[in-house]
Amino acid sequence: CHIGGNVSTNAGGIRYLRYGSLHGSVLGLEVVLPDGTIVNNLSTLRKDSTGYDIKQLFIGSEGTLGIVTGVSILAAKRPSSVNVAVLGLESYDDVRNTFKSSRGHLCEILSAFEFWDARCMEIVLNHFKMSNPLSEKYPFYALVETSGSNAEHDETKLTSFLELTMEEGLVKDGVLAQDKSQIAKMWTMREGIPESLAHFGATYKYDISIPISKLYQIVPDIKNRLSEAGVYDNNSDSSSMETDKVVKSVNGYGHIGDGNLHLNIVADKFEEKVTNLLEPYIYEWVQNVSGSISAEHGLGIMKPNDLKYTKGPEIISIMKDMKHMFDPKGIMNPYKYLPA
Amino acid sequence: CHIGGNVSTNAGGIRYLRYGSLHGSVLGLEVVLPDGTIVNNLSTLRKDSTGYDIKQLFIGSEGTLGIVTGVSILAAKRPSSVNVAVLGLESYDDVRNTFKSSRGHLCEILSAFEFWDARCMEIVLNHFKMSNPLSEKYPFYALVETSGSNAEHDETKLTSFLELTMEEGLVKDGVLAQDKSQIAKMWTMREGIPESLAHFGATYKYDISIPISKLYQIVPDIKNRLSEAGVYDNNSDSSSMETDKVVKSVNGYGHIGDGNLHLNIVADKFEEKVTNLLEPYIYEWVQNVSGSISAEHGLGIMKPNDLKYTKGPEIISIMKDMKHMFDPKGIMNPYKYLPA
Repeated sequence: CHIGGNVSTNAGGIRYLRYGSLHGSVLGLEVVLPDGTIVNNLSTLRKDSTGYDIKQLFIGSEGTLGIVTGVSILAAKRPSSVNVAVLGLESYDDVRNTFKSSRGHLCEILSAFEFWDARCMEIVLNHFKMSNPLSEKYPFYALVETSGSNAEHDETKLTSFLELTMEEGLVKDGVLAQDKSQIAKMWTMREGIPESLAHFGATYKYDISIPISKLYQIVPDIKNRLSEAGVYDNNSDSSSMETDKVVKSVNGYGHIGDGNLHLNIVADKFEEKVTNLLEPYIYEWVQNVSGSISAEHGLGIMKPNDLKYTKGPEIISIMKDMKHMFDPKGIMNPYKYLPA
Repeated sequence: CHIGGNVSTNAGGIRYLRYGSLHGSVLGLEVVLPDGTIVNNLSTLRKDSTGYDIKQLFIGSEGTLGIVTGVSILAAKRPSSVNVAVLGLESYDDVRNTFKSSRGHLCEILSAFEFWDARCMEIVLNHFKMSNPLSEKYPFYALVETSGSNAEHDETKLTSFLELTMEEGLVKDGVLAQDKSQIAKMWTMREGIPESLAHFGATYKYDISIPISKLYQIVPDIKNRLSEAGVYDNNSDSSSMETDKVVKSVNGYGHIGDGNLHLNIVADKFEEKVTNLLEPYIYEWVQNVSGSISAEHGLGIMKPNDLKYTKGPEIISIMKDMKHMFDPKGIMNPYKYLPA
């Protein structure tokens, strides 16, 4: 893992929920500009209100303005106690209400809240030859992680949160990891999803931000759309992937606490007909709910022309001016990031 | 309190330690540019990796690039349980080692760690006619605040932290607030300092960031400098302020967790001789330890020409280009913020 690359892509994953974005935790940067100027902004100060916060521009700029050669970063204290539970839930609304409840009850010790659908669970359990930690199957699963400084306190809080949400009927079943190996297994159920899907052919991957209340709606919507177009059988969802349609599976999982959905569509192979059914449809869907077409994966070479679905023309124009100001000759990571 | 002003000044105070800077918590902005363009970046998304994070430029730009007319912000859940303790300490090193210890032992529930010196305590107790919550006087005082979701857990953690640091000899004495009125009184001992000082005449105020290990060194250093110049009596420090010297008192307090010292020099009146003893001496001192001449109070009309003590010429040059790009006619909050 290269920290300069992390900064340049504004990387953020599972514990973004707890620790926030690099815009809040990078204290200083050293950057080399296209003309060779070394910008020495490698401060270690937590607070500094002297002028425009130039370093922010380089965070997430994917090397198009300059190259990050030094980083000073505010590191959080590593928590001594970590607990994980996997929950079974009946509906997406139950998932988001359980998340909402966890913000109140687990508050300062909540460090991750992930979810995935039944389809993902079947595929991941099958791929890693694991058994379901819950005694029954559920339409949705969630993983809750707490991190804190007192194991006893944290266990008490997590146990009473589980009891409460099960009493309320929000959570249908839940199991607490008993040791580190169980914690690792539970994380595999969530983090092993992309690997499990990759096995079956081509995966269309979308990494989108959507307001939490509407986050999962896009999954059944895409299933219906593909089904109506005859490229997917809405009734065939099984881990065996036995279907004569080109699209085998439509899967939703991700970081619900950050409103970040990974929408993965597994097909035999990439086919223009399927691509045209998905794009720009998905981007327009995201635009209609004021979402983002790229929550954490950036723009790179694939998405510059789709930027317009998330950012207005006045913002794209400022971005272009900014690029021109730093890199008038266009030599930094050219043909990427911004539309031509 | 105007939230647009907060954003434009990148305001951050006592709970910055816990919740971090506005660069991490502002999700979106609406800004009007000098040419009338409305930049609609009023996103409510937690994650969005589509292009340069333009909104960051307006945070802390003091109205010199555009006017903030809309803000969307990530609000933390209000903690249900708050505890406060005041500690008495023998030395500044004990203060910072106690802070370090609190990061480990109070970790996720630590919400503020403030300190002030004996001189501030005398003046503030006298001004508000309060008594010292500790049975003896100490050279330094600290206020520790915890915020969490379980009162019992938090009290246990704070009490055992106090016991531990007192056993180790780091903390000489400490008292826990028993109710809301005691919490308010303890906060007055810290937050009432500027008001108490304002009473005596003119206050030279410096709001500086310094690496924590050296944070307080500047206070005795300034006392010696003023004493040697004959404008301050190093032996006369008493709350009565009875001295025939023009400088009555040199005081240090602030947000130790953020490396942010408020250095306040109280004098009969503002006098050129004193000013010349303080500036640029203090700014050079701060520059030598790679600090910031303005931790949270910004630049405004007073500090544009002192910017050079914290930011290198290459950064000031980028700032000027940025200003020119957004505001070529220089009509936004002119004659401020940047050096001519």
